[in-house]
Amino acid sequence: MTDLPFHTPLTPQQQKSVGLDATWAFAIADKVRFAELDPLNHVNNVAYLTWFESARVAYFQHIGLSQYKDSAREPRIVIRRGIVDWLQEMRAEEVYVIASKTIAYRNTSFSMAQEIWSGGTLRATFECVIVLLTPDGSARMPIPNEIREGFHQIDGVPRVSETS
Amino acid sequence: MTDLPFHTPLTPQQQKSVGLDATWAFAIADKVRFAELDPLNHVNNVAYLTWFESARVAYFQHIGLSQYKDSAREPRIVIRRGIVDWLQEMRAEEVYVIASKTIAYRNTSFSMAQEIWSGGTLRATFECVIVLLTPDGSARMPIPNEIREGFHQIDGVPRVSETS
Amino acid sequence: MTDLPFHTPLTPQQQKSVGLDATWAFAIADKVRFAELDPLNHVNNVAYLTWFESARVAYFQHIGLSQYKDSAREPRIVIRRGIVDWLQEMRAEEVYVIASKTIAYRNTSFSMAQEIWSGGTLRATFECVIVLLTPDGSARMPIPNEIREGFHQIDGVPRVSETS
Amino acid sequence: MTDLPFHTPLTPQQQKSVGLDATWAFAIADKVRFAELDPLNHVNNVAYLTWFESARVAYFQHIGLSQYKDSAREPRIVIRRGIVDWLQEMRAEEVYVIASKTIAYRNTSFSMAQEIWSGGTLRATFECVIVLLTPDGSARMPIPNEIREGFHQIDGVPRVSETS
Repeated sequence: MTDLPFHTPLTPQQQKSVGLDATWAFAIADKVRFAELDPLNHVNNVAYLTWFESARVAYFQHIGLSQYKDSAREPRIVIRRGIVDWLQEMRAEEVYVIASKTIAYRNTSFSMAQEIWSGGTLRATFECVIVLLTPDGSARMPIPNEIREGFHQIDGVPRVSETS
Repeated sequence: MTDLPFHTPLTPQQQKSVGLDATWAFAIADKVRFAELDPLNHVNNVAYLTWFESARVAYFQHIGLSQYKDSAREPRIVIRRGIVDWLQEMRAEEVYVIASKTIAYRNTSFSMAQEIWSGGTLRATFECVIVLLTPDGSARMPIPNEIREGFHQIDGVPRVSETS
Repeated sequence: MTDLPFHTPLTPQQQKSVGLDATWAFAIADKVRFAELDPLNHVNNVAYLTWFESARVAYFQHIGLSQYKDSAREPRIVIRRGIVDWLQEMRAEEVYVIASKTIAYRNTSFSMAQEIWSGGTLRATFECVIVLLTPDGSARMPIPNEIREGFHQIDGVPRVSETS
Repeated sequence: MTDLPFHTPLTPQQQKSVGLDATWAFAIADKVRFAELDPLNHVNNVAYLTWFESARVAYFQHIGLSQYKDSAREPRIVIRRGIVDWLQEMRAEEVYVIASKTIAYRNTSFSMAQEIWSGGTLRATFECVIVLLTPDGSARMPIPNEIREGFHQIDGVPRVSETS
């Protein structure tokens, strides 16, 4: 698996080669770090949240929601709720893939699903609600039209009538 | 608030003094660290999970479930699912209190609720499911009777007929 | 030791009670967290650096160098070089005290010494060089006079003629 | 630079392509994570230490000193002293390369040099002293002959008469 490109969106073939059971528009690979191991030599349960976060930031850049370059102009992206399922422990040295997508959206918020795969098995899942605020954080901000369009075209979110 | 004892269960009066809206059997205080701040000068959303984890470990020691001293004899405590709600951002220097309790149990697992309070407002909540395994991790382990009794007497879990 | 105040400068008596071999103007207590433990059940060597950093930020606030509240007006405080000595391992649950002081200064930089004590023994030391920049980071900034005075009066830095 | 292999020793050509000024026997690439950024949008100074640590673990596996698989049989590898120089700040999204080598050894300890490069400039350096202990940690352990030989052949440590 050492020929996987790093921190780069994986192709459908690459995703298949590491065992993902579906093709995701956005999946990136990384590897367990020594500092993430706990006294049982498993990855600390909190480390997964850092991985999911890194993958979300990369996803937001990928879909054009923010480049995290100009906090005075770019929307503030806030996580409101998250549900983690730790399914199977991760160990030292393991390479893993994090897949991320949007599964639904409202006017000013959207829901994402993320999965961590390693060695052909699903290790953890995360679902969360993301809220958009104006750059100064003072108000809700509607999702820009081109981002909504990306949710449909890139992630395959069904086109339905929107509610707040 | 600087006269709060650190890393020590707070009394009902101390809990009241920092604004908790109910008395918890187990609540401890800590303070935001510089390394936990993100580019917006808010606490990184993952840091809360580390705080909840530290508080759970202290809670498990408090109720006698594990002293984390002897992994060959003590039950393995595994988190399976967690739901986080980030309600209000935390900032540099803030002192906070984490309250933790068990709210229900089955034969080999139990559910916990945790809250983070600071400056009189609720900042985040966490609910999770904890599973007990034998020390070698090979099988589910029933919750010891004295721990179940503690759930009732310490945390006020209602006495109901158990299901797996 | 549970009656130590948390995240608060310790008095000389409190410092003596936890075994420090000298009185420091600024020493604060904290406790090992579960997430800081490595697969050998020792504190990860990098965690000490986070502790030293938190203590430096508290020290800078204590001496009035920065309150970390207004990055547009306060000096930018940059670490340039650090020397760590890991002397004795730290373990789960241990309470520790970090003592911090300035030991020398030049026009735009100063040198600090920090020590971590636990259970009456010295566990790690850190020496570092701190550089002051203007708030926008574009130039070196001289140490304000009142801060230099504090180095003498608070930390006992000898009064000598300054060099760059 | 996105075609760099991840977490894999880089070839001399790959090292040259990212600007290293010399060829190292062991250099690996990684990328800044969101959680590593501080309120100034720079990488937190402690994060570099985590990067150096991860690279050392990979280096120890590369030279055969430990696979971190069997703590009952493998030497315990302890860091005693480290000197960090933070030379130029790192920012969000940057890809970096960490180069690691041994520069000298004694009977039971050795000295390493590490460098972090990004965008053709040197960002930080680390020098440290590593001590070998027996697996139970009770005594110093001599460096195995094949490892000493590797220091000469892989890293180019000069062959000189050893002292403790």
